[in-house]
Amino acid sequence: MCQHTAKPATPPLDSYVAPMPGHACACSGRAAEGQNRPPAGRLVPAAHELDFPPVPFPSAHVLEALGEARLRALVRHHHKLLRESEIAHLFAPDPAEFEALVEVIADYVIEACGGARSYTEARGEACMRTRHFPFTIDERGREVWLEKLCHALIDNGFPSDIRQEYWNWMEPFSIRMINRRTAKAQPLRLSWTEAVQRFTPALQA
Amino acid sequence: MCQHTAKPATPPLDSYVAPMPGHACACSGRAAEGQNRPPAGRLVPAAHELDFPPVPFPSAHVLEALGEARLRALVRHHHKLLRESEIAHLFAPDPAEFEALVEVIADYVIEACGGARSYTEARGEACMRTRHFPFTIDERGREVWLEKLCHALIDNGFPSDIRQEYWNWMEPFSIRMINRRTAKAQPLRLSWTEAVQRFTPALQA
Repeated sequence: MCQHTAKPATPPLDSYVAPMPGHACACSGRAAEGQNRPPAGRLVPAAHELDFPPVPFPSAHVLEALGEARLRALVRHHHKLLRESEIAHLFAPDPAEFEALVEVIADYVIEACGGARSYTEARGEACMRTRHFPFTIDERGREVWLEKLCHALIDNGFPSDIRQEYWNWMEPFSIRMINRRTAKAQPLRLSWTEAVQRFTPALQA
Repeated sequence: MCQHTAKPATPPLDSYVAPMPGHACACSGRAAEGQNRPPAGRLVPAAHELDFPPVPFPSAHVLEALGEARLRALVRHHHKLLRESEIAHLFAPDPAEFEALVEVIADYVIEACGGARSYTEARGEACMRTRHFPFTIDERGREVWLEKLCHALIDNGFPSDIRQEYWNWMEPFSIRMINRRTAKAQPLRLSWTEAVQRFTPALQA
């Protein structure tokens, strides 16, 4: 089904990997500091958890180049792949319900690209992180979602610059949907070039 | 079982509630900005998720005043209450396994208070956030855990200053165990006084 025929040569996304500040687990930090025993009454400094990199939304060029129909086709194909993936359980098992959801997501994508405002007119402010809270999304789930997006962008034959611009939106955006952490490390960052290398290894042979 | 007889009058914890930076969901921020339509190609700035307030570990006074046996009794009582709570599913159902776990946790508490190093000698660096990743801990789960700690601190009849110092450790520390977010708001902050008011309403009548 996936042909993965494109090999776009695009510069890598600027690396944005903020290190985990200190020992955010509030463990002693003993190993790092070479101490044998942490002092009583020590103060573990403030820190924070998941970093959200900047999210560049698509320019008007994406919608102008593709039109709404091809954007909608991308969302449909992406979700067809997701439905066959290890995160299929995140979506409604009922086919009609699933298809209705996909059209809503396509409405969101089209609006985010500067198109018709169907999404917010029907549903109000998008606030996607909030809307995803009921669904458990961990780092691995995001990577599967990105893998299928990479395949869908290639399968749908979009121009290379459009693929990259769309990816540069969705790659950091998807981090903001993570609501279940399973590791201290920040989520994987992948430029479009790195994604193609990682998710379509047959193309690299 | 819980008598909740103490009414310590302690100053509230310094409020540390960092506002959620911007629209971390990467939604348009339209409502906040009064715009009818977000511009195509906009850049949603970097942000981050869960704030970890500073964690003041107990001073040597806590262990000196209580001794290891009373600290261990506190941990046992706390977990007895947890086992009857809505987060009981987070613990081993097997009684022997549960009891063994409680002793390990008591080892950790005693060591964190400056006592015997049984925990790290047996298990290595504590790194509590990492050790809790396999268990789904959300904001509500943390509040239940804190409620039972409040009850245990009162039930065990610890001196007021010790209760407060122990609470001032565990209240921010417990935020670092949250690994499942269900809302954009930062987790509830509670001073010891506020906790007593919230979790032992009968005492306030």
